[in-house]
Amino acid sequence: VGDIKSRIELANRRVVELLARSQPVWIGCRPALEVIPGMTRETILHAGPPIAWDRMCNPMRKGIQGALIYERLAGDLDEAARLAGSGRIKLAPCHDYGAVGGMTGITSASMPVNVVRDEVSGTLAYCASHEGASPHGFGWGTCDEATVRHARWIQEELGPVLDAGLRSAGGVNMKQVVGRAIQMGDEDHGRCGAATLLLTRELAPHVVRLDLPKEVLGRVMDFLLSADIFALHVIMAAARATVEPAKNIPYSSVVTTMARNGVEFGIKVSALGDRWFTGPAQRIQTVFFSPEWTDADATPDIGDSSIVETIGLGGLIHAAAPVAEFGFGGSYADAVRKTEQAYAFCAGEHEAWTIPNLDFRGVPLGIDIRKVLQTGVAPILDTATAHKDGGKIGIGEARAPMEAFESALRAFSKQVESETAKG
Amino acid sequence: VGDIKSRIELANRRVVELLARSQPVWIGCRPALEVIPGMTRETILHAGPPIAWDRMCNPMRKGIQGALIYERLAGDLDEAARLAGSGRIKLAPCHDYGAVGGMTGITSASMPVNVVRDEVSGTLAYCASHEGASPHGFGWGTCDEATVRHARWIQEELGPVLDAGLRSAGGVNMKQVVGRAIQMGDEDHGRCGAATLLLTRELAPHVVRLDLPKEVLGRVMDFLLSADIFALHVIMAAARATVEPAKNIPYSSVVTTMARNGVEFGIKVSALGDRWFTGPAQRIQTVFFSPEWTDADATPDIGDSSIVETIGLGGLIHAAAPVAEFGFGGSYADAVRKTEQAYAFCAGEHEAWTIPNLDFRGVPLGIDIRKVLQTGVAPILDTATAHKDGGKIGIGEARAPMEAFESALRAFSKQVESETAKG
Repeated sequence: VGDIKSRIELANRRVVELLARSQPVWIGCRPALEVIPGMTRETILHAGPPIAWDRMCNPMRKGIQGALIYERLAGDLDEAARLAGSGRIKLAPCHDYGAVGGMTGITSASMPVNVVRDEVSGTLAYCASHEGASPHGFGWGTCDEATVRHARWIQEELGPVLDAGLRSAGGVNMKQVVGRAIQMGDEDHGRCGAATLLLTRELAPHVVRLDLPKEVLGRVMDFLLSADIFALHVIMAAARATVEPAKNIPYSSVVTTMARNGVEFGIKVSALGDRWFTGPAQRIQTVFFSPEWTDADATPDIGDSSIVETIGLGGLIHAAAPVAEFGFGGSYADAVRKTEQAYAFCAGEHEAWTIPNLDFRGVPLGIDIRKVLQTGVAPILDTATAHKDGGKIGIGEARAPMEAFESALRAFSKQVESETAKG
Repeated sequence: VGDIKSRIELANRRVVELLARSQPVWIGCRPALEVIPGMTRETILHAGPPIAWDRMCNPMRKGIQGALIYERLAGDLDEAARLAGSGRIKLAPCHDYGAVGGMTGITSASMPVNVVRDEVSGTLAYCASHEGASPHGFGWGTCDEATVRHARWIQEELGPVLDAGLRSAGGVNMKQVVGRAIQMGDEDHGRCGAATLLLTRELAPHVVRLDLPKEVLGRVMDFLLSADIFALHVIMAAARATVEPAKNIPYSSVVTTMARNGVEFGIKVSALGDRWFTGPAQRIQTVFFSPEWTDADATPDIGDSSIVETIGLGGLIHAAAPVAEFGFGGSYADAVRKTEQAYAFCAGEHEAWTIPNLDFRGVPLGIDIRKVLQTGVAPILDTATAHKDGGKIGIGEARAPMEAFESALRAFSKQVESETAKG
């Protein structure tokens, strides 16, 4: 048993190292169809573990309906719903395509996706551009005309400008951006203001030198100015590129993916490759934007954004972002306590990303399913809350459901036993 | 005596309120001659309390020589030195002209100065534009050809672009920028990275819509991208506008100015108007950029930038900027301890600027000369270090000399006695 335990420890250290040493670089913002292997005009990707049309939550369905209209595959919402349920459209998790998506995660062929490459492994990953500060968007589960029109603007103007700027800049090193943003009070999930400014700063000198009408430049700058959270969807792609090489390390009990589809929450564990282990999507402890809303209006926890907690950010590092903790009603001491809990369920610490308030201790890194069950503390996922009929109505935090970790640990133990028996 | 004490407390509360309630807005970046009342082509302003040419430290003299060449009042350094010592050039403190200047503080007629207006009192204040990330500049006490050339670029390109951007934006509210920057880990003196990004973000959408060649836009963006500290000289102007209405409040023992000229450190105290109380400029505890330098190479504490400590920033709020504390070799606990010391010598707290790490307690505000002497703790001034022959060679922190507070308190006591005798 001691031998197995040390094998696991060794494998987990290796996974922590892989996660910490990736060098994700934001290299482009291109239409999904052009860059995501296997993407087709009839494919629509969604957040979380696999789920069939008829089991999806409302916002996800509405996002899909909206995307079908946006792709001109349907003329109206009814036609879109029939088409989505007909089997002629391939609905699949972003994660199956090396991608991730925010909230509903809806990603269709024409949508520009942030392309991030891990320079260590060469892994590419993708995340559709954030739709901005508006509470509407396919990601929030709305599908009205304004949402579709805004998506076309992202496609026709924002995406190409960002892409050209990135080409001129030779990419933006997201490891540096995230590291610096943490030192500026971002936990890089709910709070991405510093990261967004840092990205804007890297791109601006290049973007302004492009041969573009000044009104186009102005609109792009307006967008970046208004969307504090823009960087999240680049950080998510960086995280997706980071976790891929950390999969399939035998004996490692470290989580390589956490994702939710609004019905189920799922994890992947390194030694277990791409198998999903799921539990029910949890209620989000929400600070609603308006008193008109309550928990009864809220969609349960949804989105692939929890990939950032998988690499040590978001809910794991409130000690670095007391402003975020305060937004949820907590104190500085609460923030530090939550991060101490994260150290207790993680296999290691990041060697480059550090928390000033903890005397530059590395962020907790590599959620170990064994330790989650030992401590009885599930990771906190910072998130936003979607209305059950679509639209952003609040921000909050959810806990990952223990069921997913329990079923993963059963499978992990079985696999370890069988590997050990083999040799 | 009880009555006098309560009059002082009341007056100090009023000064803290005045300092906290100002609304400084960055409204322009114009040549000093155009906007600073009393400025002439033959005037050169410098940092700190008044000082004659022959008592100035080397970097200040070199800055003046450089400025005379830049203004085409002298052809070479020797001629410039003769002219500066001749009495034909008026050398005066920035503070006498409603202005402040970084390090040497050299400000001449053609230099663009950031113009800040306090919307509450209408007070205008000025601070010459920061010269950027280079260790050379008039502010650092260099006067070579590259320094002069760069100053001309600031005059001809940077200043006009910023000014036009500011006009289009209708100004930038510095109270908001500073408040948000504190929540992003700036102490807003040595560390202004967040404030600079926030300013850039406010201006960028306007600047890109100006009718300018893209290469000009590109150079301006390059400058803002490279100069993390750019915002400091706007914050300094905001602080200068903020302290003016807080002067001359009878019975107030609160400091309204701290400034150094490299030889002397001086303060002003509210009840005592514009009188200077001085002590020797202190040695800076410096982290040198290269091991080639030691304390023997360093100019003593210099510059008007300590105006930001006067309004509760910089050395008073390391608890908000543990990254800065760490840069000086300190820990998170050191940062918090230093800020606790600042609360002990301050008359109050800011109502809008808060420190997340201290559960959003307002920053310590209004240095009370009585409390400085009671606690025996002098304010920390975050700063940079200039080589004794010019050039930036490090960053560090200095303590204000007690002598200035002692002589101010003697004058304050005398004035209080005489006012009380009067009735």
